[in-house]
Amino acid sequence: MEKYYMGKALDLAKLGWGKTRPNPLVGAVIVKDGYLVAEGYHHYYGGDHAEVDALKKIDYTAKGATMYVSLEPCSHYGKTPPCVEAIIKSKISRVVIAMEDPNPQVAGKGIRILREHGIEVVTGVMEEEAKKLNEVFIKYITTEKPFCILKTAMTLDGKIATTEGDSKWITAEDARAYVHHIRNRVAGIMVGVGTVLQDNPQLNTRILNKEVRHPTRIIVDSKLRTPLHANVVKTAKEQSTIIVTTEEASKDKIDKLRTLGVQILKTKGRDGKVDLEDLMIKLGQQKIDSILLEGGGTLNYSTLEAGIVDKMLSFIAPKIIGGQAAITPVEGIGKSLIKDAFIVENIGIQQFQRDILIEGYIRRKEAICSQEL
Amino acid sequence: MEKYYMGKALDLAKLGWGKTRPNPLVGAVIVKDGYLVAEGYHHYYGGDHAEVDALKKIDYTAKGATMYVSLEPCSHYGKTPPCVEAIIKSKISRVVIAMEDPNPQVAGKGIRILREHGIEVVTGVMEEEAKKLNEVFIKYITTEKPFCILKTAMTLDGKIATTEGDSKWITAEDARAYVHHIRNRVAGIMVGVGTVLQDNPQLNTRILNKEVRHPTRIIVDSKLRTPLHANVVKTAKEQSTIIVTTEEASKDKIDKLRTLGVQILKTKGRDGKVDLEDLMIKLGQQKIDSILLEGGGTLNYSTLEAGIVDKMLSFIAPKIIGGQAAITPVEGIGKSLIKDAFIVENIGIQQFQRDILIEGYIRRKEAICSQEL
Repeated sequence: MEKYYMGKALDLAKLGWGKTRPNPLVGAVIVKDGYLVAEGYHHYYGGDHAEVDALKKIDYTAKGATMYVSLEPCSHYGKTPPCVEAIIKSKISRVVIAMEDPNPQVAGKGIRILREHGIEVVTGVMEEEAKKLNEVFIKYITTEKPFCILKTAMTLDGKIATTEGDSKWITAEDARAYVHHIRNRVAGIMVGVGTVLQDNPQLNTRILNKEVRHPTRIIVDSKLRTPLHANVVKTAKEQSTIIVTTEEASKDKIDKLRTLGVQILKTKGRDGKVDLEDLMIKLGQQKIDSILLEGGGTLNYSTLEAGIVDKMLSFIAPKIIGGQAAITPVEGIGKSLIKDAFIVENIGIQQFQRDILIEGYIRRKEAICSQEL
Repeated sequence: MEKYYMGKALDLAKLGWGKTRPNPLVGAVIVKDGYLVAEGYHHYYGGDHAEVDALKKIDYTAKGATMYVSLEPCSHYGKTPPCVEAIIKSKISRVVIAMEDPNPQVAGKGIRILREHGIEVVTGVMEEEAKKLNEVFIKYITTEKPFCILKTAMTLDGKIATTEGDSKWITAEDARAYVHHIRNRVAGIMVGVGTVLQDNPQLNTRILNKEVRHPTRIIVDSKLRTPLHANVVKTAKEQSTIIVTTEEASKDKIDKLRTLGVQILKTKGRDGKVDLEDLMIKLGQQKIDSILLEGGGTLNYSTLEAGIVDKMLSFIAPKIIGGQAAITPVEGIGKSLIKDAFIVENIGIQQFQRDILIEGYIRRKEAICSQEL
């Protein structure tokens, strides 16, 4: 039953997808005498936390009840009063928690306070599922840098376009629609200027849903080659757009772009190229907690080399186009030896009507080192 | 229960893997008064058919029993007397058949004879599974050409080697072992001379199993560049080896290779290149019913263009190596437009310890045309 109720709490948490940022997704249920008496979740940033959302439904009267909550209740005054206070006040006697607060500075404090007030606390129920649900939050709260998802789409022979450059479409409609659902959840979407020059994309969210959220567009463009008439520039006043450049950018063009509503961000120099690690720090400061990387092969390789990629979403279309000169999802200089490859682990597979999605996490270099010790 | 017993028959059929060639895999069970009283299968080419193998176990006394057999019983004298005769003699009253004989010239004849002798016949039980099991036989008996399986192994970014040419190993041990199990089942294994020159492979079957069968090696080599000291030549007296060439091949080298035990096969000319369609006819005449294509990107594209590929086995290793110049599983000129891609359908996915196998069937051009009409 512990898992059943925690599963409910996790499902409730998901209702906040894309709206709680940079707060975590949290769900809670209250069970009394074997009945589920209240459900709650964190609806949006600044709104009630899940615990309070659930407690309000029963007017804070929960004497002897158990609360299942997907994340350790908070113990500090933020946008709202601390949840532990509300829980203690409601006379709940037992709290089951999926995962501790990932912020090392506060982790365990909420649990300790609850225990000090005589409340029984159980932790670690469906911890793995809870951690996966809040992978973005965990990365952001612990590093202050965005969680980066590298998305690629290729044929069964590893191509993202034909030798002639035709790329419409590698994947079918349902797989492409899924990508728009991801765009709707992330804070930013990043491409290189090459993609802007070649495809002139909108980089917006196109889904049949009233609650559409467009991610901030981030264009990596060291020499500021983005044309003033590019779609991303023309719509910069409706959808937040950042062009990331270096000292080499022309001041005149910067001014023109700014007038059109584009935010210009300069990173530390790195051989005249954008320093992606520095960029992540700067984007994190702008509260961008998550980025979908939809760049071309060159940028994709750079992001992997820079160590900023956390997760990989690789769509594979069961078709073959051939072509020695056709381009592949990750290019650049490339590794010389297979043993130095970037490893994708914790693999999950989803089958769409026609296409296949392989998802996984990039193994951290630190992890490899500690394994080898 | 029909499916349960037919499932048994299909499992029995599989015991003949690689040994019945070019005969089909067939299994049979006999059920009397609710008891499974006999099991049989086609053990090896020239041996008893499944029906007789099962009937022998109960001394042909099966009055009133039901036989489940994965393929329509034969009605002609071949290597053995016809099975329908044995069934009639045994007084079996009911025969359940998964699929008709795929040979259009004899299909239905066995069923008709059984019915004429008052035996109830049911067909089509687990037909799809039976057809998949005998996909090689069906292709070979209906076209007299081998069933070709294109096998590739690439990284999650579509590479079969690094820019430096390192390819050991893309996939892990269990996936590579699986390929050896497939080599053990097919009649032939085909590569281009490029692979021989670069990797000097053995192209044999390496499995921990006493019943190892090495496929016939088929090297596509229009200009006869295979070195006399290549592994495939040095071992040609132990493992059947065919080098396929054209009129351009030097007579002197042909003689030398023949002395070393290599069979030389010439196809019709086609701009100085091996005509793969003609090759399939010639290999079919040599009773080669199945070929595993393990060539490089150039040969792979040629086989697809020639329309000789039936099935695709695409191993994907969850690692990324990048590299604009790294090679991909299918190269050649390539298609100009995505809409002209080779389509892989009826997709199946297998997960190995680390790697992923996507398998499917190449959609026939005829099928596309008839769909469009």
